[in-house]
Amino acid sequence: MMSATLPFPARFRHPAQLVVAAFGLAVAAGATLLSLPIATAEGEATDTVVALFTAASAVCVTGLAVVDTASHWSTFGEVVIAGLSQVGGLGIMTLATLVTLHVSGRLGLRAPIAGQTETKTLSMSDVRALVRKVLLFSLVCEAVAAVLLTGRFVIGYGESLGRAAYLGAFHAISAFSSSGFVLWPDNFTRFVADPWICLTIATAAIVGGLGFPVVFELVRSWRHPSGWTVLTRITIAVTVTLLLFGTLVFLATEWRNPRTFGPLDVGGKLLAAFFTSVMPRSAGFNVVDIGQMYPSSWLATDLLMFIGGGSAGTAGGIKVTTIGMLAFIVWAELRGESRVNIGHRRLPETTQRQLVTITMMGVALVTVSTYALLALTPHRLDQVLFEVISAFGTAGLSTGITPAVGTAGHLLLTVLMFIGRIGPLTLGSALALNRRARHYELPEERVIVG
Amino acid sequence: MMSATLPFPARFRHPAQLVVAAFGLAVAAGATLLSLPIATAEGEATDTVVALFTAASAVCVTGLAVVDTASHWSTFGEVVIAGLSQVGGLGIMTLATLVTLHVSGRLGLRAPIAGQTETKTLSMSDVRALVRKVLLFSLVCEAVAAVLLTGRFVIGYGESLGRAAYLGAFHAISAFSSSGFVLWPDNFTRFVADPWICLTIATAAIVGGLGFPVVFELVRSWRHPSGWTVLTRITIAVTVTLLLFGTLVFLATEWRNPRTFGPLDVGGKLLAAFFTSVMPRSAGFNVVDIGQMYPSSWLATDLLMFIGGGSAGTAGGIKVTTIGMLAFIVWAELRGESRVNIGHRRLPETTQRQLVTITMMGVALVTVSTYALLALTPHRLDQVLFEVISAFGTAGLSTGITPAVGTAGHLLLTVLMFIGRIGPLTLGSALALNRRARHYELPEERVIVG
Ligand SMILES: [K+]
Ligand SMILES: [K+]
Repeated sequence: MMSATLPFPARFRHPAQLVVAAFGLAVAAGATLLSLPIATAEGEATDTVVALFTAASAVCVTGLAVVDTASHWSTFGEVVIAGLSQVGGLGIMTLATLVTLHVSGRLGLRAPIAGQTETKTLSMSDVRALVRKVLLFSLVCEAVAAVLLTGRFVIGYGESLGRAAYLGAFHAISAFSSSGFVLWPDNFTRFVADPWICLTIATAAIVGGLGFPVVFELVRSWRHPSGWTVLTRITIAVTVTLLLFGTLVFLATEWRNPRTFGPLDVGGKLLAAFFTSVMPRSAGFNVVDIGQMYPSSWLATDLLMFIGGGSAGTAGGIKVTTIGMLAFIVWAELRGESRVNIGHRRLPETTQRQLVTITMMGVALVTVSTYALLALTPHRLDQVLFEVISAFGTAGLSTGITPAVGTAGHLLLTVLMFIGRIGPLTLGSALALNRRARHYELPEERVIVG
Repeated sequence: MMSATLPFPARFRHPAQLVVAAFGLAVAAGATLLSLPIATAEGEATDTVVALFTAASAVCVTGLAVVDTASHWSTFGEVVIAGLSQVGGLGIMTLATLVTLHVSGRLGLRAPIAGQTETKTLSMSDVRALVRKVLLFSLVCEAVAAVLLTGRFVIGYGESLGRAAYLGAFHAISAFSSSGFVLWPDNFTRFVADPWICLTIATAAIVGGLGFPVVFELVRSWRHPSGWTVLTRITIAVTVTLLLFGTLVFLATEWRNPRTFGPLDVGGKLLAAFFTSVMPRSAGFNVVDIGQMYPSSWLATDLLMFIGGGSAGTAGGIKVTTIGMLAFIVWAELRGESRVNIGHRRLPETTQRQLVTITMMGVALVTVSTYALLALTPHRLDQVLFEVISAFGTAGLSTGITPAVGTAGHLLLTVLMFIGRIGPLTLGSALALNRRARHYELPEERVIVG
């Protein structure tokens, strides 16, 4: 029943295959467009690997850039990048929400985000309504952010209305889709003391990165937190915790750094620390030069980028829900509980194993990629690890080595951005659907741990 | 019944407390002895923090050294260090085996290592017999290694018999207890082309690091691998895999490095790669200068040191059994199995959560310590991460920054060596014993993962 009513073409035996195909096609189309001479400011064709890297970076909403976006690309090229970011951001949001519904439906669960409360099947019109909701909500958010940014560029920075609107729209899309492309060579550092711009960008990035199911539940029932689903409660709790943690760590580490927070007044330090703690999850703008931050700040950023944002949103990483549920497992185990309970719901053993699998695969991928990039380039571990986690977590922050990792390094990062973007989603849904029945149980054997 | 017959004094409500107290006492006694003027070659009292660091490094069989062991300490000091290593190595082996029995007994499991097959309780005489077995086995292994080393030092290096026997005994203890202290300023690099010495040291380190329960089962029934416990099978499989993995990675990475494997012939490269892959688990000798290896080799070493060796042996880390069982969880999940089975035995859900807890606590400890040491010192992430994981995993390898991390850094590493040595054991046993009964079950809620 389910599969007949869901919008996945019959040739795709699994929704994960559709996601891979859609993203692969978008990257190929984007690379082709960006290879055209018309896409560059100089009017000359861009190197294929650079075009491929940039297209993958835009579609996967990573935002790592080999060339300076504003000076290398023409307006046509910039519009292509913004368009790919929009397609990538909305695409992942829509597909992830659909896959979530599909998985929930197959698992026989209520799908609260579609709005229906009793029925367990999902009709084609439900799906259409859902996609409309996602699109409408995203466009409204981006429009609000674009208007706020445009106003500020006119009032505060003397831009013409046309130029300000262009900049406003580009960066609103870039923030909400969490792609993180920027039209200034020094990123957002010129706006470090501008709360209007910083808070607009940060808010758009947070909302886009929470994930549609959570945002929709918040919009619908923000007055009644006691009725929230476990997904929403974990997402909100971990997001707030990580934002506080990041802000405090960056304040403590960079407070006196003369090349980052040092010259700012206390309010400026607070604003910069908050902005810097929002961006690893995973919009990827920066108001201070990442390359000048202390390596201990890079380590904290690595952690935040690896975790990323919410499920079924534009953010990457292993997701705040994953780390939140892992923390609950550890907490339950330290307290000696025989079950892991989160907010009056028991966490199934299968979900616990999925968390372990997603996390271990992420760690393995980051480790192998870091080893390879260390061997391929002369850069240091702190720079390489930062770059690899940034690509995997689709954060797009960089210590500055992106242009200097060579062709092999660029291809490696391209693959990593792609896997980082769709890997956790496809792996997660595949794990949830790929369950075998077992008709007998083997006896247990306890093995001492540690 | 159990608790009345076990050798844990009544004031220790939990075996973990006994382990902490015993190791704390040994470190304090060692630090006092090493602070005496008689302990140094110059006859002057050693700085308290250096003495404390060295005592902790010896008792926790880590082997990190702030001062050059041979030139700083007198023969008295060296004997103290060897004695502390012996006490630490045998102590952890005996205590871990007892705790394993205690845990297995409390959990109502057969305790195959004590030799009894039917009864589930453990008498005081069983315990005495077990301790005798551990001691006898360890001393025989160390004696064999000492004789082999002594012979080689006499024949190959023209040492007097007395000096050769001293060097042989010191390094046999150092290898089997996996403490890794060495009486040459350039560690074992002078023996890089000497298979006799390299293979003796590597074998002693592997046997000591397998863990007593596994070694005893191997000795008893090496002809019948099909009857081995899951513990033994996982330990052997992961150990062999990691040794192969390490050898291949070090060969590939360092083959042409002119300052490490480059000058060696093919046989020499193979021997050096094998030796280098044995040492992170966690004896900590080196035949090539770690500081001259490529950062990608450091990363591979980090991984091996974090994993460490077998349970209830002299090795540290989160243990090969932990990583092996985690790999089984991932594999079962990727195959869509509804249960995790290892060798016809089902892995209990509680054990799965213990694995997650041990691993997450290890990752958290390493991350926080790395952040702190990065903030405290001017060293790079690759060096600091290596040093922190080496201390946590009680490996004792270093890129060379140990003397240069300052007093705060030395105290941090001292605490880390202590926690790294007894943390996984005490945490593991505490988790196994600290189980609450729950008389009702909450309904499940599945949350999408990734
Ligand atoms: K991004
Ligand atoms: K060691």
